[in-house]
Amino acid sequence: MITQEIKVTFQPTGRSVYVLPGTLLLEAAGRAGIVLQTPCGGRGTCGKCRVKILDGECPSSAPAESALSSEHVQQGYRLACQTYIDKPLVVEIPAESQFGAAQQILTTHAGRGTVLNPVVRKQYFRLNAPTSKDAISDVARLKAAIGEATIPFHLLLTLSGFLRTHDWQGTAVVAGNRLIGLEVGDTSHDAYGVAVDLGTTTVVGSLFDLATGEEKAVSATMNPQVGFGDDVISRISRVRENQGALAELQQAACKAINSVIHGLCEQTGVDVRHVYEIVIAGNSTMQQLLCGLDPSALGEVPFVQTFDGALTIPAQVLGLAVNPGCEVFVFPQVGGFVGGDTVAGMLAAGLEKAEVPTLLVDIGTNGEIVLAYDGKLQATSTAAGPAFEGARIVQGMRATAGAIEKVVIHDDVLLNVIGNTRPVGLCGTALIDAVAELLRRGIIDETGRILPPDEAPADLPERLLARLVTMNNQTNFLLVPPEQAASGEAIYLWQKDVRELQLATGAIRAGINILLRRVGLTPDELGSVLLAGAFGNFIRRSNARRIGLLPQVPCGHIHFIGNAASLGAPLALLSADERERAERLRRATAHVDLSLDSEFQMEFGMAMMFPLHDLDTC
Amino acid sequence: MITQEIKVTFQPTGRSVYVLPGTLLLEAAGRAGIVLQTPCGGRGTCGKCRVKILDGECPSSAPAESALSSEHVQQGYRLACQTYIDKPLVVEIPAESQFGAAQQILTTHAGRGTVLNPVVRKQYFRLNAPTSKDAISDVARLKAAIGEATIPFHLLLTLSGFLRTHDWQGTAVVAGNRLIGLEVGDTSHDAYGVAVDLGTTTVVGSLFDLATGEEKAVSATMNPQVGFGDDVISRISRVRENQGALAELQQAACKAINSVIHGLCEQTGVDVRHVYEIVIAGNSTMQQLLCGLDPSALGEVPFVQTFDGALTIPAQVLGLAVNPGCEVFVFPQVGGFVGGDTVAGMLAAGLEKAEVPTLLVDIGTNGEIVLAYDGKLQATSTAAGPAFEGARIVQGMRATAGAIEKVVIHDDVLLNVIGNTRPVGLCGTALIDAVAELLRRGIIDETGRILPPDEAPADLPERLLARLVTMNNQTNFLLVPPEQAASGEAIYLWQKDVRELQLATGAIRAGINILLRRVGLTPDELGSVLLAGAFGNFIRRSNARRIGLLPQVPCGHIHFIGNAASLGAPLALLSADERERAERLRRATAHVDLSLDSEFQMEFGMAMMFPLHDLDTC
Repeated sequence: MITQEIKVTFQPTGRSVYVLPGTLLLEAAGRAGIVLQTPCGGRGTCGKCRVKILDGECPSSAPAESALSSEHVQQGYRLACQTYIDKPLVVEIPAESQFGAAQQILTTHAGRGTVLNPVVRKQYFRLNAPTSKDAISDVARLKAAIGEATIPFHLLLTLSGFLRTHDWQGTAVVAGNRLIGLEVGDTSHDAYGVAVDLGTTTVVGSLFDLATGEEKAVSATMNPQVGFGDDVISRISRVRENQGALAELQQAACKAINSVIHGLCEQTGVDVRHVYEIVIAGNSTMQQLLCGLDPSALGEVPFVQTFDGALTIPAQVLGLAVNPGCEVFVFPQVGGFVGGDTVAGMLAAGLEKAEVPTLLVDIGTNGEIVLAYDGKLQATSTAAGPAFEGARIVQGMRATAGAIEKVVIHDDVLLNVIGNTRPVGLCGTALIDAVAELLRRGIIDETGRILPPDEAPADLPERLLARLVTMNNQTNFLLVPPEQAASGEAIYLWQKDVRELQLATGAIRAGINILLRRVGLTPDELGSVLLAGAFGNFIRRSNARRIGLLPQVPCGHIHFIGNAASLGAPLALLSADERERAERLRRATAHVDLSLDSEFQMEFGMAMMFPLHDLDTC
Repeated sequence: MITQEIKVTFQPTGRSVYVLPGTLLLEAAGRAGIVLQTPCGGRGTCGKCRVKILDGECPSSAPAESALSSEHVQQGYRLACQTYIDKPLVVEIPAESQFGAAQQILTTHAGRGTVLNPVVRKQYFRLNAPTSKDAISDVARLKAAIGEATIPFHLLLTLSGFLRTHDWQGTAVVAGNRLIGLEVGDTSHDAYGVAVDLGTTTVVGSLFDLATGEEKAVSATMNPQVGFGDDVISRISRVRENQGALAELQQAACKAINSVIHGLCEQTGVDVRHVYEIVIAGNSTMQQLLCGLDPSALGEVPFVQTFDGALTIPAQVLGLAVNPGCEVFVFPQVGGFVGGDTVAGMLAAGLEKAEVPTLLVDIGTNGEIVLAYDGKLQATSTAAGPAFEGARIVQGMRATAGAIEKVVIHDDVLLNVIGNTRPVGLCGTALIDAVAELLRRGIIDETGRILPPDEAPADLPERLLARLVTMNNQTNFLLVPPEQAASGEAIYLWQKDVRELQLATGAIRAGINILLRRVGLTPDELGSVLLAGAFGNFIRRSNARRIGLLPQVPCGHIHFIGNAASLGAPLALLSADERERAERLRRATAHVDLSLDSEFQMEFGMAMMFPLHDLDTC
């Protein structure tokens, strides 16, 4: 049954999502790309996820009172982690409730987070013209005003002329201790930077005001490299097969970034020449292709990266149309497929400071897993395959309009479809939901087999039993009857789909288990599981745990932290100290190559089996 | 009288000079461009100027025994400061007796001088190919072998291909903490650098082996900028008048340096691609023109330089045909016309460590003067004009073949002519000699007037009296009668020449006096006077003092240190520490602008008068 969904609109962004009745407000916000602070794990005790109901009915749930004053409740404040949606709502997200780099930076004044300390600063100067009593060199005169700075030769060539033509006034642009530009007049207030999440599929950029740390706009585009193959392996293969492909792939990435920057500047009216810093975080392959570094060695055992420390590359060399002095900071990488996006996630999560055993899991085609325990960091990556993105699923699709993205099974099936349209197929979250729910109802057994009607539990409601359809000796589960589907054709969860999910889940879970085993931890000793990645953000925690993708820890220990690269890149953009921290994190992290672990195959096989039971609590 | 001159050949260079009988061996060596160590001021007490007579008769003079063992004397060793030449000689100069950067570096093992620590080092590496158990990035693998180094982006682009093509072996070239090249095979023994003395007239380069500090060759060429004017002021004017002239002057300088480097490599068989470092020292104008920095502001009050701190410029940017990774270190400058050559001289002389009040005087068209007193350094420059280079002297010429370069007057006139030919004209040293000798004989009075025969001292020998020739109410002094001159025309010291010398001497001496006065010193309190510059090297100390060019200090306190730029540039080439010391010296030195000193005109006028008396002692 496809229920009527409820519209929830978030302010100040104005983004709307449609959700099933009974959805947690915290989850609805996540669907809108808004990750809220939940240091208490969503137990309603810390009060950090406070939001304000601007319009719509929304009773306050019991534990809220403990973290919110009754006065605040009267004013419309609610805890997103304790509030279930029944009616359409308009909700305001206070900046301090949001989890993210800009918020971490902006809250500095309150004594936490990162101090705003961008690499680039601009300074307006007015010098006295030389006189006989003050005849120091032009360089010394400028430095006396703007502080010690290296002046690159091409700027030195213009310095004397600039000063004399412009009445000894202007604006110096300094990156670190290097002068990168001289501008006519006072442009000191126009200093911007762009943080780029360079994904295999999508490129997302955020424009930040370097003087205030404020995020001015977000813009995204498809990565045109998808024309060379959907995943990183196919793109690496293209380079290995065809020498010219490397340049084409590089140009494609740079073109996408230029397009994103163009979009950001158009939205805000910012001049592209006032963009002085770009920070880019992506996976190992994306980062190497961006730089024009042949990724062939990543395409075969033993998966060698060209570089690990962060790179700083002139934007001009990459053909990025910004200020000519702009440099591009490319995130450090740990090793193999543990790339800059993972380091960005570790940075945003502050993994080096974790006080309890903490797992960071970034779920995508590749799963990257980091374990922080006892001050030590280990990272690995594992090929989950594209199942979570809807690929190789018989009726799978990406999480776009028409995708079933949530499945709840009580007496019958409740579905949530993106865009409130008729369903077209199912995306990764729905796949997990469906399998978890069918496991709970005993319709799928621990080996992953969908039971035929005659083996199904005796107490199964008739409506569910009718959905078990056996074809060619395999049973599939009917999710959408033909008359409700967009195409007029029934949508099933196919037995084959369950197998694909088992492969994907097994790969990630085996990685988690091996990291845990290396330090002698059991899964239940984990104090915190951080879910990153665009996909991780939409997963239902209890369902991910039910299928064994995540270890058996209370849901309160599982936190969504949003897109790793999108969180960490702004930190490095807005603070030189964060760049150093990223470099330290990279160096401190041991890279674990799962293919070397003699027990990986065994772990993988075992992890493909679904758990017999799940924790009782969420 | 032109006496037959004596040939002295120096080994191991093989250079020969012709000198008057009775010339000090120390002075003859100077004429051959070899400056010997004379820490005791040439008093025969320290034994540092020890040389070995390989061929020819040369009795040991008395004080030598004190500093040389009789065994050594028997082996042919002599003290150059105590040995007068009577017969043709072949003399070996031991490396440790020579004053100069290479020697200072080479003697490090004996615990003194500068430690060989060039900015560029080469290292052969053999890496293990990656395996599954050792899959660190290519960058990390290289750094594990060669140490921490920044890898510029253009080299990073080639790194992975290089390692895989060349079996994980090669030679890394590292400048400071930056990789500047990767070479196939083991080329670690081929590392060279060039130190360039970029003079207004001449460009001299020395090729050094960076691994041993050894000087391999010296090569010189005219500065083709002379086509734009002889002196710096005329070249600055050209740039001020014609926008295109700056590029032409820059190209001329770079062409000269390329030609010098080409010559050095041809002499030694060194591949230009194995030249990884270039150090250049020149005056402010030469340095700015080399860099393409408009020197117009140096051409008018208040004489502003574009830069003061040292520059590091890619050799490729200057169009120098050496290794593509080579960088050019351009010496720091103090201010106005106190340029990189003066800083190089201060560096070579170790002025910051001077224990007695010490004056460094670099005599040329511009005189640069530095006073070190009580840990403080002051520097100034003064326009001496071209008299010391033979210009504006009626029968003046440069110190080339045919130039009278020494004048001694006893009963008659003894002359020394360069190249043992008939005289063509007189160069700067002969001008000083002649005037000093005539002052001693009372033929020139303290106002600079050459006395007519009727005013000449009563006891003047007839032969000298006959040389006083009055024309147009002025008396001139006949140096060479027509029958002895190359052209068949008599050569005179003209009254006008004496006036030119007074202007040149007065300018330098006024500068010295003003620096002394600023710290409350009198000239006789100077503990050391260091004479630098190609010209300063050939001056007779007592004669320079007699005409008032130098203060009245004992000759033992006056030391020749050779060409300032040629001495200091190799230090900066062979030691990163010396570069830092040069930078410290530059910063610690106060620039004194004489044009601002209200008493300069008065000092200048007074300094043009010759001293009434000279010290009795040499």
